[in-house]
Amino acid sequence: MEVVDRVVQAGRSKILLVVLDGIGGLPVKDGRTELELAKTPNLDRLARVSATGLHIPVDYGITPGSGPGHLALFGYDPLDHQIGRGVLEALGLGLEVRDTDVAVRGNYATVDYRNGKPIVVDRRAGRIPTEENRRLTKKIGDEIKSIDGVEVMVAPGMEHRIAVLFRFPEPLPEGSDRVTDTDPQAVGREPLDPSGLTPQAERVARVAKEFVNRVAKILREEERANFLLLRGFSQKPKLKTMYERFGIRSCCIAVYPMYRGLASLVGMEVIDFEGSSIEDQIRVLKKVWEDYDFFFLHIKKTDSYGEDGNWEAKVRVIEEFDRLLPEILELKPDVLAITGDHSTPSLLKGHSWHPVPLLIYSNYVLGGTSSRFTERECLKGEIGIIPAKKIMNLLLANALRLKKFGA
Amino acid sequence: MEVVDRVVQAGRSKILLVVLDGIGGLPVKDGRTELELAKTPNLDRLARVSATGLHIPVDYGITPGSGPGHLALFGYDPLDHQIGRGVLEALGLGLEVRDTDVAVRGNYATVDYRNGKPIVVDRRAGRIPTEENRRLTKKIGDEIKSIDGVEVMVAPGMEHRIAVLFRFPEPLPEGSDRVTDTDPQAVGREPLDPSGLTPQAERVARVAKEFVNRVAKILREEERANFLLLRGFSQKPKLKTMYERFGIRSCCIAVYPMYRGLASLVGMEVIDFEGSSIEDQIRVLKKVWEDYDFFFLHIKKTDSYGEDGNWEAKVRVIEEFDRLLPEILELKPDVLAITGDHSTPSLLKGHSWHPVPLLIYSNYVLGGTSSRFTERECLKGEIGIIPAKKIMNLLLANALRLKKFGA
Repeated sequence: MEVVDRVVQAGRSKILLVVLDGIGGLPVKDGRTELELAKTPNLDRLARVSATGLHIPVDYGITPGSGPGHLALFGYDPLDHQIGRGVLEALGLGLEVRDTDVAVRGNYATVDYRNGKPIVVDRRAGRIPTEENRRLTKKIGDEIKSIDGVEVMVAPGMEHRIAVLFRFPEPLPEGSDRVTDTDPQAVGREPLDPSGLTPQAERVARVAKEFVNRVAKILREEERANFLLLRGFSQKPKLKTMYERFGIRSCCIAVYPMYRGLASLVGMEVIDFEGSSIEDQIRVLKKVWEDYDFFFLHIKKTDSYGEDGNWEAKVRVIEEFDRLLPEILELKPDVLAITGDHSTPSLLKGHSWHPVPLLIYSNYVLGGTSSRFTERECLKGEIGIIPAKKIMNLLLANALRLKKFGA
Repeated sequence: MEVVDRVVQAGRSKILLVVLDGIGGLPVKDGRTELELAKTPNLDRLARVSATGLHIPVDYGITPGSGPGHLALFGYDPLDHQIGRGVLEALGLGLEVRDTDVAVRGNYATVDYRNGKPIVVDRRAGRIPTEENRRLTKKIGDEIKSIDGVEVMVAPGMEHRIAVLFRFPEPLPEGSDRVTDTDPQAVGREPLDPSGLTPQAERVARVAKEFVNRVAKILREEERANFLLLRGFSQKPKLKTMYERFGIRSCCIAVYPMYRGLASLVGMEVIDFEGSSIEDQIRVLKKVWEDYDFFFLHIKKTDSYGEDGNWEAKVRVIEEFDRLLPEILELKPDVLAITGDHSTPSLLKGHSWHPVPLLIYSNYVLGGTSSRFTERECLKGEIGIIPAKKIMNLLLANALRLKKFGA
């Protein structure tokens, strides 16, 4: 148990964590980063009176995926609590994952039948169009509802990817996901049978094997996507909820399923709402403001444009957020944190290991150290460069929700 | 064992650690902290040629009590070595705690006798005046000198609080303090009997039970404080001395019993002296300067005024210390560190989690980074923001008392 868990006390203060996904960047024009290029008068003003710094999501030099990036922001050690591939894929495609479930990623693949045996000739079925994926996945979903009393759910991803979820009638013991992949990882080979590495996983393997066989029959007449390979069997990680750890009622306002799913793993209430713009999200925030202590507001587009290498668009999203910031401030959160789950420099067109700018505003900060919310200005701040998993300590402290340690 | 313990070497250099208790602050006037408001020409001059930084006593966001705050400054991990409530109370009230002892906190309480059984009606005896506490505690101390060969000591605290110490004839095995509280934690209930949770604690529980019974008889005729409730049985933590770890002969120059007691836990020699002003303390420092390698000078009032929310008075204490600093410098310590055990912002009227300014002066620092000894100026320094428990490494290094690690 972390020391923070031992000093939690009740409170009525409200904490708002705004995650600008992938916000950190690198110089893209005139030696300036996306945050430096953006015109952000409101963020600048806030930065001047806030505690600033940067955080390291997992470790120096380590580029985090969205899973570890967010778990760390929520106060969970991302190395102690790893989220399996299957679970992350399922969450990302909008499937709810429970402690009765084993989730796995699937690839549509092309096989040739030789002497009645399938031999993989394309592990990705020529990257079939997402449209075709949807059609096939619907067909599978319609035809396979359950296997031996185990509920089966499928959700189409992009191109050849799909998520499969096996829901058992009762919570599964740990180790039930120790099932081997069926993807032989090379063409010219026969798909492997799923096999359980622990007694409790054998039952899951049997269901998975039956599922693969039934799918093969359903897809038999397809030209390209006539088989399904499975990998990354995984269970929902056992995490205490944020309420159990910190005594806070927390909610998630996010558009994309993956982040909604990640929030649900730590027990946040995931708010359903209409629309997908930042404005829509702020409208929802206002609506539920009285109902929770902790609000996770996830803004996706900074990351998306970073991944595309489109720095101009990333700058525009930052400026859009800046314009809406006064509306957020009107709510008068006791503690407001603005940061990202990792950096996504447009220069790298992907997640990166770079420390992520962090701003914490409350009545109990020094402030006066940084003139803007940028990578370089945050380096001057009172927070320093800290592990992301410690941010929650600071948020709870600034919310006066931690009592003294020792006498 | 920490790496520092493995590279200690002998030396003749002298280290002076000045703890301005609760020194760190937050803006209280014109956006400036107590340290920023204080006129400190001598500290400013020193800061300009010193290594500066800030330290985190226990962990990010964690507000430390005086116990963990000081243990960390002395180079001990405050999470590995926790000091029990009873021991801390006893130390704070001037009782020496040895490895033969179990200490416990007591509350004077009011009970009603119903069918001969005591029922708690006020767990704090209406917070009796400290005067009355002193009278009663003296009476108990005079009438109960020992129980079954176990020496008994009592010391009055504020209002209803007292410290009780049971001194056994020989050192006690670990776990002897695993005795349950007698405080039922609610009115309308009978006080609980102390009970040993380990075989070695049973003996302590028997003595404590007999003590409570005898006290009840002594207090029988009192109107309000007619019973004593006990909680927080604890033994002195097993700590190597600073001499054992670092090869330094250390002493403590502190006015308040708690800090003298904390110093004694790590084997410091506690100097007795007349007077209680900073000037008195510096006089003593000069007197014993030839006799030790390490000097812990504890200045209390910065914390006291911070706790009162009296920032003007805190500023004055800082200025008083600044005026006396040249006298300290005349001693030419090889290493001089000035810091606090935690922050006590007047704004918060209590200890806080904020990093604590730290200054280390020696012949082997860069310097030239900070123009003053303030929270914001120390952010610019060469030490950065470090865990408090690592400060001793730096002090020993600057004193050239650590040899090379590895070849």
